[in-house]
Amino acid sequence: MGLPLLQIALDNQNIPDAITTIQQLGDVVDVVEVGTILCLQEGKAAIEVMRALYPDKCILADTKCADAGKTVAQNCKDAGANWMTVICSATLPTMVAARKVMDDLQVELYGDWTFEQAQQWMDNGIQQVVYHQSRDALLAGETWSDADLDKIRRLIEMGFKVSVTGGLELDTIEKFKGLDVYAFIAGRSLREAESPQQAALNFKAEIQRVFG
Amino acid sequence: MGLPLLQIALDNQNIPDAITTIQQLGDVVDVVEVGTILCLQEGKAAIEVMRALYPDKCILADTKCADAGKTVAQNCKDAGANWMTVICSATLPTMVAARKVMDDLQVELYGDWTFEQAQQWMDNGIQQVVYHQSRDALLAGETWSDADLDKIRRLIEMGFKVSVTGGLELDTIEKFKGLDVYAFIAGRSLREAESPQQAALNFKAEIQRVFG
Repeated sequence: MGLPLLQIALDNQNIPDAITTIQQLGDVVDVVEVGTILCLQEGKAAIEVMRALYPDKCILADTKCADAGKTVAQNCKDAGANWMTVICSATLPTMVAARKVMDDLQVELYGDWTFEQAQQWMDNGIQQVVYHQSRDALLAGETWSDADLDKIRRLIEMGFKVSVTGGLELDTIEKFKGLDVYAFIAGRSLREAESPQQAALNFKAEIQRVFG
Repeated sequence: MGLPLLQIALDNQNIPDAITTIQQLGDVVDVVEVGTILCLQEGKAAIEVMRALYPDKCILADTKCADAGKTVAQNCKDAGANWMTVICSATLPTMVAARKVMDDLQVELYGDWTFEQAQQWMDNGIQQVVYHQSRDALLAGETWSDADLDKIRRLIEMGFKVSVTGGLELDTIEKFKGLDVYAFIAGRSLREAESPQQAALNFKAEIQRVFG
């Protein structure tokens, strides 16, 4: 497996702010995520703008789709997204319907999912999961634990491409040493850095140092 | 308990189409739901337009929020929504953060939620749940069963205002006789009727007949 990718989560409130962010670090990151907040505030235009700015970049629509998988996937694809997210509590038919349309799906792991469900996703051609520390859980004082890392390892052993996100700072990267993480997803720590470009370069360098 | 409410799910693809729908039946329905697809296509403008058209109507933003509860709730409130939906797999801190901002939340029941979780929602001031037949599950041939009705009854007995949705047709209403359903949520069967206004009036009349 190659080096983990770096994914920027554009959880900006509006398109102009998202453009300001992406113009500073779009050339450094591997995946551009149009965050849920941005999707809900600006609609598909947010995806279309990112596709216009980065014709060749992998763009993820973080819809956290829970239903109407085919329609949501088709809309995201039409707007220019390569991947989209579905929520883990979506039914299997929803995921399968979305998977038929999109190149790949990321299943967002929130709450009480099970490895049995994960096996069903895998059996239905879904290759990516996002292991998530919820922003609100982080605000409530929770953080990355050995239990989290064990679950991530088990998902990787099942064959998933596992991306990790939630309060990732530069010095969090090392915690994942030895795990074939697919992508580190960072939002605030890049967006709100004094120099977002330098912060993204630092993340890439740290990924190289730990996983290279 | 009063008669069940009638909620229109505006799962239109764009604002002009949603306006066309709502202008035909907005005066008949009790709750205007800006559907997930519409939210994701048009962003907060879809909520703002419905608020402009119906200054005094209850408006629900069907965000199916899974994270960043405070921000998503504040954005929906700022756009004019009274209620919003959260997904059942959201963490409790996410729901609590959203609940502090919005007048009320609807928890969307998809996948493997438990009554223990439901009790936690109730204990944290969340009064509404949506019992959902997923569109994709319906497409896969599933339908309303006694097991569904038993779960709805149990949720009502716990004290929830339970709304039901998913493939509701006029002749589905009678299946719920004897249950204190809070709202019937209909989308396609109203939107795609020859006369959406007449279809909404028929739903109201059937609710009156069965529950009156």
